[in-house]
Amino acid sequence: MIIDRLIARVTEFGPVCVGLDTSTAIVPDVMISKWGAAEAVLRFNREIIAATADIVACFKVQIAHYEALGVEGMACYRDTLAEIRRNGVPVIGDVKRGDIASTAAMYAKAHFSGDFEVDWITVNPYMGLDAITPYLDDVEKREKGLFVLVRTSNPSSSELQDLTLAPDGSTDTEDRRVYETMADCVTRWGEPFRGGSGYSSIGAVVGATHPQQLARIREQHPRLFFLVPGYGAQGGGGRDVAPAFLDGNGAVVNASRSILGAYRAAAGSEEAEKQFAECARKACLAMREDIRRWMT
Amino acid sequence: MIIDRLIARVTEFGPVCVGLDTSTAIVPDVMISKWGAAEAVLRFNREIIAATADIVACFKVQIAHYEALGVEGMACYRDTLAEIRRNGVPVIGDVKRGDIASTAAMYAKAHFSGDFEVDWITVNPYMGLDAITPYLDDVEKREKGLFVLVRTSNPSSSELQDLTLAPDGSTDTEDRRVYETMADCVTRWGEPFRGGSGYSSIGAVVGATHPQQLARIREQHPRLFFLVPGYGAQGGGGRDVAPAFLDGNGAVVNASRSILGAYRAAAGSEEAEKQFAECARKACLAMREDIRRWMT
Repeated sequence: MIIDRLIARVTEFGPVCVGLDTSTAIVPDVMISKWGAAEAVLRFNREIIAATADIVACFKVQIAHYEALGVEGMACYRDTLAEIRRNGVPVIGDVKRGDIASTAAMYAKAHFSGDFEVDWITVNPYMGLDAITPYLDDVEKREKGLFVLVRTSNPSSSELQDLTLAPDGSTDTEDRRVYETMADCVTRWGEPFRGGSGYSSIGAVVGATHPQQLARIREQHPRLFFLVPGYGAQGGGGRDVAPAFLDGNGAVVNASRSILGAYRAAAGSEEAEKQFAECARKACLAMREDIRRWMT
Repeated sequence: MIIDRLIARVTEFGPVCVGLDTSTAIVPDVMISKWGAAEAVLRFNREIIAATADIVACFKVQIAHYEALGVEGMACYRDTLAEIRRNGVPVIGDVKRGDIASTAAMYAKAHFSGDFEVDWITVNPYMGLDAITPYLDDVEKREKGLFVLVRTSNPSSSELQDLTLAPDGSTDTEDRRVYETMADCVTRWGEPFRGGSGYSSIGAVVGATHPQQLARIREQHPRLFFLVPGYGAQGGGGRDVAPAFLDGNGAVVNASRSILGAYRAAAGSEEAEKQFAECARKACLAMREDIRRWMT
């Protein structure tokens, strides 16, 4: 199971996940002028990957930034994934797909093989289990994994995810929320895919911006692996993500803008092209230190 | 508002939406052998578009089938959209995106401009309003529209969408479901974007496979425009989609496999390449007739 590889990476390199949400706005202007948008993004990513591969658990690539550059951007997405693979680091395709079974089977083909192959993808549970099932064959047989959205990091996430459900007699609690039911679903769906570590290759996305709910889900699901977005630019810190961890493992924490754009605080615009990768490495190390300080 | 254009198309050409979910499995084998996958899909789509443009309300293109072919497939997606535009027919990009605001802004750029520009996209509401907001500027200023998932057509859709909510005092009913709350949200979000027709450029996806719930949502939301998937291969018929309509308008009904693959029932394999477009046209006309027979 691919989860065991991720668990081992967290033990060896720490829980930082670098998000390659590489918008053209975060790449130094001088690179965009010199290479054009898609090529500049790829060159930027390559240097970030080289500078951080030995201090991160994994990379997460947000496909939206590549789609925004059209067909050229999709070629850049493909080449970025290939570069991560060459560096031997697990990669999450942050695609948040969710569709009927026949369509999900096409997404499985798209993201677990061919040009856009990744190790993990993020999926959206709004459509229920049969939108997840078509990926499970690859989870079982081809060492792939899923992160299912449970409690997301954005401010409006409460609108649906925090709705209180009517008691259905299945539990003692009377204020059960939608996100808790989804966490139960994810644990149940992941049962057949537990690795030697006890965690499953079907994990959950739970945002750093809701530390109390993160703690609540962890308490109810001690062996559910978390992808925790929302650290850094979205406001989460080491103390907020601490409840995600048990014995120093059980989660990866993603940061994107605070790492990719770290050079801006440190470097003048003329120095940016030379320093962005080094600044990203320093930001990663500081983030890892911040998380380790608080984790149990 | 773009909704008024769609309303006018439904009045003039009927409510059929042809889903270009063009998997390589549905394209005649002889075309795949001759042209290779991506080129064969594009040639197939071009003929389907030419054969049906004057009898449909719009096309819907399911991006998964193109992603599954990698970067070449994305070029085919771009060229398919361009072909629909040349034919002057509205097009829905069935991408079901849903992500935090900064990412959604990238998706807006990706799907409302550039290579992958469409008139409408489908979006997933699991993350709440701020995952929708970044698209609204284009809805207002650039004649774009959204279809938000409310009650999807797949069998497992009840797992989350049918959960009963605890009474919150806002309504008299005691068995309020998640999907009803989402329908309320969509109507509220769409309020500022109503066109002359009274309908909004923010519509809802409600599956043909749940006719009673379709009727319930229609009753509660008389001016919510529906994209209704699930006709044909998924089991829905004219009678099932009838509750979506008021005075012969208010919805488009999508069918994909039953139209694209209609030639299989009619033609031997050697004739397939010559007949698929004509068969698709006949299937469209029969579907339009079936829906009109039941609609009010």
